[in-house]
Amino acid sequence: MLKTGNLKRDLAAGSLPDEAFYLLVDRPGIRIERIVSTGQTTPEGQWYDQETDEWVLVVAGAARLRIEGEGDDRSLGEGDWILLPAHCRHRVTWTRAAPPTVWLAIHFR
Amino acid sequence: MLKTGNLKRDLAAGSLPDEAFYLLVDRPGIRIERIVSTGQTTPEGQWYDQETDEWVLVVAGAARLRIEGEGDDRSLGEGDWILLPAHCRHRVTWTRAAPPTVWLAIHFR
Repeated sequence: MLKTGNLKRDLAAGSLPDEAFYLLVDRPGIRIERIVSTGQTTPEGQWYDQETDEWVLVVAGAARLRIEGEGDDRSLGEGDWILLPAHCRHRVTWTRAAPPTVWLAIHFR
Repeated sequence: MLKTGNLKRDLAAGSLPDEAFYLLVDRPGIRIERIVSTGQTTPEGQWYDQETDEWVLVVAGAARLRIEGEGDDRSLGEGDWILLPAHCRHRVTWTRAAPPTVWLAIHFR
């Protein structure tokens, strides 16, 4: 029985209070997850600071990302990806709420 | 300087003789690649038989996949993914040529 799915289906009809995380692959050296955002952002003054590298893709929707030390947000649309090295501090400053924004995030060492 | 890109841009205008491979991440335990297919299939009688697990996503376009031992092809459309364990023999029996079919493949141990 092979594991299958569709990243764009089964999206929330309305806005959710929190981002929804779906773990697709979980191994010692790699984690693949789908994240559905409906307007959520990283709380003011907080940064993601991760132990592992992250390759992240906007599958659907749109978002803005701020990298620490950069003067402006980066705008991400469908198909855009970015490779965030471990400890590259970053914040999500905007996500499109409707239709939802779908991310694919791959964390690896 | 962060590595960035867009999976859906810079597609070939016409059909290419071969599938186009773009290596996005290459580490000892993980390889992430983008593949652009313009009608190519696995040659008759051949199977992919890989040493590593593969998580594969159809980013754009459509394809058909045959898994050894299954009676029918599986149809894959945008957003569909499948986790192929190592040595799960499979063949690509059809890919949409125009606009091209874009895959994201993650190989890992």
